Amino acid sequence: MSRFIRLDMSTKKVSIGETPEKYLALGGRALTSQFVLDEVPATSHPLGVKNKLIFAPGLLSGTNAPSSGRLSVGAKSPLTGGIKESNAGGVTSQKLASLGIKAIVVEGKEDKGSYILRVTADNAELIPADDLAGKGTYELTALLKERYSEKAGVICIGPAGEMKMLSAGITNNDSEGNSSRYAGRGGLGAVMGSKGLKAIVVECDKPFDAPVQDKERFKVAAKKFAKILMDHPVTGEGLPKFGTNVLMNIINEAGTLPVRNFSTGRFDGASEVSGEKLAEVAIERGGKATHACHPGCVMRCSNAYPMPDGKVCSPIEYETAWCFGPNLDISDLDVVAKLNYICNDVGLDTIEAGCTLGVLMEAGVLPFGDGEAAIKALEEVGQGTALGRIIAAGSELAGRVYGVTRVPAVKGQGIPAYDPRSCKGNGVTYATTPMGADHTAGYAVTANILKVGGYVDPNKKDGQIELSRNLQVATAAVDATGLCLFVAFAVLDNEEGLPTVVEMLNAQYGLELTIDDVTALGQQILNNEREFNANAGFTKADDRLPEFFYEEELEPHKTKFELKDELDEVLKF
Amino acid sequence: MSRFIRLDMSTKKVSIGETPEKYLALGGRALTSQFVLDEVPATSHPLGVKNKLIFAPGLLSGTNAPSSGRLSVGAKSPLTGGIKESNAGGVTSQKLASLGIKAIVVEGKEDKGSYILRVTADNAELIPADDLAGKGTYELTALLKERYSEKAGVICIGPAGEMKMLSAGITNNDSEGNSSRYAGRGGLGAVMGSKGLKAIVVECDKPFDAPVQDKERFKVAAKKFAKILMDHPVTGEGLPKFGTNVLMNIINEAGTLPVRNFSTGRFDGASEVSGEKLAEVAIERGGKATHACHPGCVMRCSNAYPMPDGKVCSPIEYETAWCFGPNLDISDLDVVAKLNYICNDVGLDTIEAGCTLGVLMEAGVLPFGDGEAAIKALEEVGQGTALGRIIAAGSELAGRVYGVTRVPAVKGQGIPAYDPRSCKGNGVTYATTPMGADHTAGYAVTANILKVGGYVDPNKKDGQIELSRNLQVATAAVDATGLCLFVAFAVLDNEEGLPTVVEMLNAQYGLELTIDDVTALGQQILNNEREFNANAGFTKADDRLPEFFYEEELEPHKTKFELKDELDEVLKF
Repeated sequence: MSRFIRLDMSTKKVSIGETPEKYLALGGRALTSQFVLDEVPATSHPLGVKNKLIFAPGLLSGTNAPSSGRLSVGAKSPLTGGIKESNAGGVTSQKLASLGIKAIVVEGKEDKGSYILRVTADNAELIPADDLAGKGTYELTALLKERYSEKAGVICIGPAGEMKMLSAGITNNDSEGNSSRYAGRGGLGAVMGSKGLKAIVVECDKPFDAPVQDKERFKVAAKKFAKILMDHPVTGEGLPKFGTNVLMNIINEAGTLPVRNFSTGRFDGASEVSGEKLAEVAIERGGKATHACHPGCVMRCSNAYPMPDGKVCSPIEYETAWCFGPNLDISDLDVVAKLNYICNDVGLDTIEAGCTLGVLMEAGVLPFGDGEAAIKALEEVGQGTALGRIIAAGSELAGRVYGVTRVPAVKGQGIPAYDPRSCKGNGVTYATTPMGADHTAGYAVTANILKVGGYVDPNKKDGQIELSRNLQVATAAVDATGLCLFVAFAVLDNEEGLPTVVEMLNAQYGLELTIDDVTALGQQILNNEREFNANAGFTKADDRLPEFFYEEELEPHKTKFELKDELDEVLKF
Repeated sequence: MSRFIRLDMSTKKVSIGETPEKYLALGGRALTSQFVLDEVPATSHPLGVKNKLIFAPGLLSGTNAPSSGRLSVGAKSPLTGGIKESNAGGVTSQKLASLGIKAIVVEGKEDKGSYILRVTADNAELIPADDLAGKGTYELTALLKERYSEKAGVICIGPAGEMKMLSAGITNNDSEGNSSRYAGRGGLGAVMGSKGLKAIVVECDKPFDAPVQDKERFKVAAKKFAKILMDHPVTGEGLPKFGTNVLMNIINEAGTLPVRNFSTGRFDGASEVSGEKLAEVAIERGGKATHACHPGCVMRCSNAYPMPDGKVCSPIEYETAWCFGPNLDISDLDVVAKLNYICNDVGLDTIEAGCTLGVLMEAGVLPFGDGEAAIKALEEVGQGTALGRIIAAGSELAGRVYGVTRVPAVKGQGIPAYDPRSCKGNGVTYATTPMGADHTAGYAVTANILKVGGYVDPNKKDGQIELSRNLQVATAAVDATGLCLFVAFAVLDNEEGLPTVVEMLNAQYGLELTIDDVTALGQQILNNEREFNANAGFTKADDRLPEFFYEEELEPHKTKFELKDELDEVLKF
């Protein structure tokens, strides 16, 4: 039986029912976006009683399909005002799926108390936990594991979410108990905070216990898929060796690394904050250059970076190294790690925090390149000062508060680590994805820079619309499976990739899906999301990049972003 | 010859040309909205190089038509993201019109220096004025009058506008030199600040020198219009005696006075901050209970309130007394005056500031009822602190930064002094006017509360759509004439009112307009504004009140706001 848990924070009632027929074949982003469209009024206040927060493991989560442990979280976003799905690795997706839980929905509102939802094999119970209010995610996760079970997975928010800060994320822990696997983007932590829910404890000792209809067939497909991943240079070599931050030198070399709040595309200090350097220092200090964010991941692109103060920051992703490094004119990995750690602990999206600090440096609130000032400012988030709240409100709001015109954000969400002018395929994705600027929604770095899945010149507009469209559709489908998006590197270059994913789904659920069905699923997800956003008041005016990308040339390629009306064609199917 | 001045702040070039044919028959809001639609790209950044700021006297300004000295200011609003027209009394509209100037347009951008535009009978000159940067409007106005001419009119911004704060206004002085007549709403001061223009000095000694084609015909009509105004109980008695703040007790009695951030509709301390009390104290202290904001006004609804520190706050309008009084649970007129004065000096819209302080009190940043705390917080605006910037960013942004769900704003602009639940006609206006929440855009208090122009039950939805529509059309037309909106009280109740306005226009311009032409003008203005907003990305989702007005009952009448889909019919002509 597939279970569907509803928690009403207004009444404090938990109900565990069967999954509605309509949602049985959905998982991950396919489920969260369909559900939000179905049940959240599009114009409702994102921090109000009518918003609903949904947690859903991907379709393949809880099986031994390699790298399939992504947990999707959905709601109306307080940052963008549109629909949001944000997914994370960590252990809880596998645990929830292994418990036969299709989704947990949190509805209603609680303004005063702090609560924990404890999920066990046959129960789900709401427990008052005012003693845990205000705790950072690291301490909180350790406390809850100690209190309930060392093998429990903990989904939680930090003080940022409790204070309903607009770029607060929701985290869950990795196998070592680090609370650092974030559904970071779009402020879903603030939604959880508005409901008075501090954490969900998932007690389940088995990560691979989800029901599989044809186990033998599944095993063959999963093994084949693991080989496909291991055979590709990115998923089999680059990522396992240096993690995502292997991109730092590559993107810098490509001249599309956003430096000093998107002022230029190359950074002298790039190598100092690169994956290569990170691996060197991490190993030297007894950390890990490679690490799996959830059991069963063969790419192991995470890391564990010991900081000078003895604490360990795990992981430092490329986008985080970028936003706290080149974006702020900072080339000190220890500063980057510290900023990253503060975000993880207080419960804040790193990308948004980095974009926002860049905007504040542009405004002259603190100087570019000043790591100490950045650390001091970011520490104010947890203190809830006025400046701390501005930082946690995200780049667009901070830009408005300080009257800044150069604000790298779309639909209220900060633009990540690839300048749209010299990686135009990503620019198309930033502009048009219903999620607000998001590199993962249609990662055109593949064909633009890495020459994976073909090549499209990153500095020219030709081919970018089609590239982004295809990637957005494929990504939406991948986000439904619970597979890590990084499998796409291999899938795009291996014609057996996608059929093998379909084969795993068919073996697990006793279906006979085709590749066309998967494409249709991706399109359906995007259509649902666009329908919600249209109801919320979004128009094509929201599907554009900020003015300065159209006006200012980016060095070294002297490129502007020039796509406008063509953008309206991207998500027409 | 009608002159059209263009000032390009990027090149520092001033050009004085003939008014384009298209704009000859337009003035005030009719001109500013047409111009902004014509020349400002709707999706451009409001503080960027592509936004344009236009100052335009009303069509009747500079004549001796009674109460015709309103100056319209237009641009894309940094507060709402839509088109904005905000108009003010004071002396400069009459002076500009008397100089034969149809409009002054400020375009381009200047990020560093501070400049003054000096306008004389036959010239307009841009003068560097870095020595004036950062000065408050009171000192600045005095200095400029001393420097150029005691009879000069000064249009200027305070530090809030220079710091590009989103609710910064643009002020100009009254006959006594007080820089307190604000085009306050929508952040036009920030647009002026983004262009590096600190002030416009208008040197002209004659307030009534605009060309009139048929002087005798005009004189007869103007005299008749003055009588119509003097004969009406509101414009002839109520306003001249106690000013706009005569409304405090009336709106309180009606049970639609927003108290403690729109939590209830009646306030125990209303009489303490009423117009009656204000008149008593002002006279006692040697101030003025009645005062004309510009020469030739017969209603004289302004006042001059001496504060305990010896300074004079002039005027204290009803909406300001409300937003710093009942809205903050404050019943001390001296506190209200001080808050008002700070706004006038730093250059901030009082209504937005009061709404924002209410939201911050709701968030617990400072306590309701604490006048000292409110003064201290508001003083931070001029200091440019993080909290000061949040306050000056307006109610909606402050609400988002602090995670507040009860935020009284539409299209990013704070809702003024009449609760939409028990003054539903105003609610319809707040929701649908292209300006963002604005009581002046369709002031249904007339028929809802004052029984002027008929009676429509303020607590029922019946008739409100039509009421607001008619008022919005009439208001747009009035805003084109330069007449003070308050003439509407008399015009609505006297069938000779509107024909007399038309007669003045015909006499001045040698036209043969009919009343239907005036209605058509009002509709055209609104259509232009809605077209701009649609291009900027506004949809019907933006034409709604905040959720809490639909969910929470207002005491004492236990009313909610229940109009939704009907709102889409308001501005369909």
